[in-house]
Amino acid sequence: MIRTIYWDNNAVVMIDQKALPLQETYLTCKHYEEVIKAINDLTVRGAPAIGVAAALGIALGALCIESGDPEGFRTDFYRICERFAATRPTARNLFWAVEKMKKRFAESASLSPARRKEALVAEAIRICEEDSAANRAMGRHGRSLIKNGDTILTHCNAGALATAGYGTALGVIRAAREEGKELHVFVDETRPVLQGARLTAWELTKENIPATLITDSMAGSLMQQGRINLIIVGADRIALNGDTANKIGTYTLAVLAKEHGIPFYIAAPLSTIDLSVQEGRAIPIEEREGEEVSCYHGVRTAPAGIKVYNPAFDVTPHRYITAIITEKGIATAPYGESLQRLVAAQAFG
Amino acid sequence: MIRTIYWDNNAVVMIDQKALPLQETYLTCKHYEEVIKAINDLTVRGAPAIGVAAALGIALGALCIESGDPEGFRTDFYRICERFAATRPTARNLFWAVEKMKKRFAESASLSPARRKEALVAEAIRICEEDSAANRAMGRHGRSLIKNGDTILTHCNAGALATAGYGTALGVIRAAREEGKELHVFVDETRPVLQGARLTAWELTKENIPATLITDSMAGSLMQQGRINLIIVGADRIALNGDTANKIGTYTLAVLAKEHGIPFYIAAPLSTIDLSVQEGRAIPIEEREGEEVSCYHGVRTAPAGIKVYNPAFDVTPHRYITAIITEKGIATAPYGESLQRLVAAQAFG
Repeated sequence: MIRTIYWDNNAVVMIDQKALPLQETYLTCKHYEEVIKAINDLTVRGAPAIGVAAALGIALGALCIESGDPEGFRTDFYRICERFAATRPTARNLFWAVEKMKKRFAESASLSPARRKEALVAEAIRICEEDSAANRAMGRHGRSLIKNGDTILTHCNAGALATAGYGTALGVIRAAREEGKELHVFVDETRPVLQGARLTAWELTKENIPATLITDSMAGSLMQQGRINLIIVGADRIALNGDTANKIGTYTLAVLAKEHGIPFYIAAPLSTIDLSVQEGRAIPIEEREGEEVSCYHGVRTAPAGIKVYNPAFDVTPHRYITAIITEKGIATAPYGESLQRLVAAQAFG
Repeated sequence: MIRTIYWDNNAVVMIDQKALPLQETYLTCKHYEEVIKAINDLTVRGAPAIGVAAALGIALGALCIESGDPEGFRTDFYRICERFAATRPTARNLFWAVEKMKKRFAESASLSPARRKEALVAEAIRICEEDSAANRAMGRHGRSLIKNGDTILTHCNAGALATAGYGTALGVIRAAREEGKELHVFVDETRPVLQGARLTAWELTKENIPATLITDSMAGSLMQQGRINLIIVGADRIALNGDTANKIGTYTLAVLAKEHGIPFYIAAPLSTIDLSVQEGRAIPIEEREGEEVSCYHGVRTAPAGIKVYNPAFDVTPHRYITAIITEKGIATAPYGESLQRLVAAQAFG
């Protein structure tokens, strides 16, 4: 079992995703600043994992607060929360986790500072454990969409490494395998950061799930050849109408899927849904530094002076999405209704 | 002016495209085996440039033939031609150039071996010069399709480096610039070999044509944002019905162009048209070694043991192609008629 991120002895431990697949090393963060740095530099990435990292990081930050008076504690706690909220703009789960921690903070106002810190640590650990459980539930719901013998295409890494464990899109694939289905996975390498080649290929190889690596530009040819039965990807933020932000390149796959009549599925926990965003165009899209595209391992691959455009995500309009797999069930169009129903189901237990 | 490949003092000189954009170095081949190696290892690439390399390489091979008797000369010459024909399977221009050299060989049967070698060298130089001239003619025809202020997307390298000079798709862009049109070019990096990042970005930077580099997976998002006015790419082989094989990822761009109502143009010399192939499915698609995808600069980017699928080309069906720009004019659907007409126009002068 791959342990992506967890709380251990007043520290946040995470697998170093920048070192994969060449090295399997773990980073132990004893100060919340180290967790912030790990989110920023992609040591931990994937929307649900970023949410978990923020929750655990905020708990770690709370432990460091020295102020004994409630007002000072509050000021320091909110400052730490804002620092985490400023790391990456697109992943909804990040803001969801920050809000969960703030809520627990408010609820624990009557406790002593020491007890309050314990409550915040307990909340963060619960967020971590619930994410893992949500993925397994997603797998149980989603596996019905995969038939024995299917060939599946996935993009980026929506696996154990993108979550507290098990994965969203890869969780559904794992669940189908666990019930004995034969399947084959084509993995988009996912430029520029190569999460597919480095992380998804590593997860699938580790578990002996038959897989083949391709460049992002080869997916269309495979669909044209009739070699892809379905596509499953994760999500970084889902608008109320079902429009979904995910790793750059996802929209292209959705258009190709439509052109070839191939089902296109999103797998994501309900914490990915942004109830404050009506449609995809309102989702903020992170642009990252050009060197991710123009350099590799410190070697320039493009001439000096060339401009680079490097959006980390794109938005797939809901009309391209066959279904959204969540831990509370599978939503289909109209998503405005189906997603609200699943969110309500979760809120009421 | 970029000189991609030329004949100089009984040698074939070519810019080393593997060293670009970091170094601008030239390789001087004094034996035809060196030219074969250069085609195989992508020191020279791009369908028209491969054709020119083969013609010049065969001429170089002819110079080395020691046999004085016509039958021995013929055997050696044909063996050299077969060696070149076996380098890369998709580029039509390679086979076209080999046939041109065989034709000149047959026509020169009455000459002494020394004169015959001269005739073959002269033919190869003519093929090289005509390719360059064809690109300029393509530019004059194609530039009318570009409006002042347009933003153009291109894929791979269909520039001076892919030809004897000036370029096919980039030739049309150069011609539009030369008549004073303002334009901006988005360059797909073109995984796995990064011809866009390494070569097209280098050509455009060198000539101060405004350009922005993106990963292949970002093109769809740009089209969705309404930021692309037209797409121009080259071709490796065109079937009689207009179906076009080009660098892997081209088909995806064509599907995206259709989805967004964006014109999708092919620019290629008539030597790219395969009169023996009725439709795209009959075009042989080269598969290259997996290390192109799973390694970079000798560093593995994917885990050991992962399978790789690495087709170098895909086929875009003619129904996605708005027009095919050639040196004899612009072909539109039905291509079966329009391409035949242009080929006939060329044959008769």
